[in-house]
Amino acid sequence: MSDRQPHPSTSAIPDEIISRRNAANFPLRHKLIRVLFRAVWLLFASWTPPQLRRWRLLLLRLFGAQVHPQASVRGGAKIWYPPNLEMAANSVLADGVECYNMARISLGEGAIVSQRAFLCGGTHDYTRATNPLVTRPIEIGARAWVCAEAFVSPGCVVSEGCVVGARSVVSGVLEPWGVYAGNPAQKVKTRDFDPNK
Amino acid sequence: MSDRQPHPSTSAIPDEIISRRNAANFPLRHKLIRVLFRAVWLLFASWTPPQLRRWRLLLLRLFGAQVHPQASVRGGAKIWYPPNLEMAANSVLADGVECYNMARISLGEGAIVSQRAFLCGGTHDYTRATNPLVTRPIEIGARAWVCAEAFVSPGCVVSEGCVVGARSVVSGVLEPWGVYAGNPAQKVKTRDFDPNK
Amino acid sequence: MSDRQPHPSTSAIPDEIISRRNAANFPLRHKLIRVLFRAVWLLFASWTPPQLRRWRLLLLRLFGAQVHPQASVRGGAKIWYPPNLEMAANSVLADGVECYNMARISLGEGAIVSQRAFLCGGTHDYTRATNPLVTRPIEIGARAWVCAEAFVSPGCVVSEGCVVGARSVVSGVLEPWGVYAGNPAQKVKTRDFDPNK
Repeated sequence: MSDRQPHPSTSAIPDEIISRRNAANFPLRHKLIRVLFRAVWLLFASWTPPQLRRWRLLLLRLFGAQVHPQASVRGGAKIWYPPNLEMAANSVLADGVECYNMARISLGEGAIVSQRAFLCGGTHDYTRATNPLVTRPIEIGARAWVCAEAFVSPGCVVSEGCVVGARSVVSGVLEPWGVYAGNPAQKVKTRDFDPNK
Repeated sequence: MSDRQPHPSTSAIPDEIISRRNAANFPLRHKLIRVLFRAVWLLFASWTPPQLRRWRLLLLRLFGAQVHPQASVRGGAKIWYPPNLEMAANSVLADGVECYNMARISLGEGAIVSQRAFLCGGTHDYTRATNPLVTRPIEIGARAWVCAEAFVSPGCVVSEGCVVGARSVVSGVLEPWGVYAGNPAQKVKTRDFDPNK
Repeated sequence: MSDRQPHPSTSAIPDEIISRRNAANFPLRHKLIRVLFRAVWLLFASWTPPQLRRWRLLLLRLFGAQVHPQASVRGGAKIWYPPNLEMAANSVLADGVECYNMARISLGEGAIVSQRAFLCGGTHDYTRATNPLVTRPIEIGARAWVCAEAFVSPGCVVSEGCVVGARSVVSGVLEPWGVYAGNPAQKVKTRDFDPNK
């Protein structure tokens, strides 16, 4: 959020990176995957302890997610559509995270998303009476940390090493190794980081 | 929020539009309706798919809500006290919405309240040692959109066509067709709107 | 938050009041207490009506909490580690409160924490590659009110009589009888208070 502007999550959407449609317009196959995955996750994963990490990754892969064997998704995380999830080594989705990946959501190496954060990949174009759905990808860079209960807006790029403070609301492209806080979030400092400690 | 003041949700309550009492002072009938409705909703509505819209409206009407046949309340929405709910045609309460209607909460035609937003109709008068309950109505105007996880304070008027951005916290009287964001929310622009698209 | 600075929840941690370790490093006894308590609370307390207040206090005491007989913890409150909880007379933890007491969390006489507020006693030192856990105590002073869905950062002192507005995010040491709102929260006024009403 280099410009420090307050923002609604849908402001200034560049046409080239969004897709517009009605929620009801998802193809049948897409809907079936979601309904089936939700049931499978509820029954076989949502209650599992942290130790069953590999089992949950297996389920996610069966439903089309691209998740590294060293990634971690807790049972209490909610994935909207597995085919739109991409996780690198040592990346983490904690309990209670809402991964609303109507468009692709990707986590870089070592990226951590803490409990009950909301990664919001969809919104609506409120300039039209039909309110069409607008989906936009989210990127969480390597070693970034999205703290507890933060909100990441559609289209947001949380760059490498960023810290998004607890309960912050971010949008746009964040600066690498920036520490952000507030609603709307502002950059409050550059992150010190010692790779050897 | 024409004055752009930060605010606690209870600041500056005009005496003529509030009611003061203790939570424990609700009449027995009021409490019974709430307990019974909560049980009925949990058992017969909370888990129902979107398609059973009319069934849920029927339950709400049985408990005293005034809901238009074209309104929509998702199973995951939580209504505190149905007799205080009023919904016009094509208005929507999404999953996870907390409709804490200790006073009347009304939605105009086409008003949309997105997932996990909190419509908070009650607070306490913290200037008195007895902390009396204060209830104030909330109005969501026609074509307004309260985005995901936003917070609407007691007594707030979200005027016609307003957009309250995701996670924003609003209070007071918002300007018609204003777009608001932040905590506390500020008006960030006027909403463009094309009724023909 | 006397300095009115935006802040991530982990900024400027004075070394003398924090403890650093890995989450995995809690002693076995500590982990067992947590697992056992979570199961016991889920089965025997989480669904209980407000009237069974004394029963819930009994369970908390059995697991090491120091809670006054006149304190109140609702069934829907989530206590992470009872031995780190201290509650004075007439203090309240409402439904949905996350009491994440990785370090001690104490409530003074008459202190109220409203529904779904988050008392966050732990974070991570993001300046080190190993991301060590950092725990810090939280103090809620006598007669303070943490409103619905507010967030209290690790190490925060909510002083006597403070009001932390709904959805506010506070950190640092708040001024006694200050009213705070926003994210990051600012002091918006001094609380009027009449002890005789």
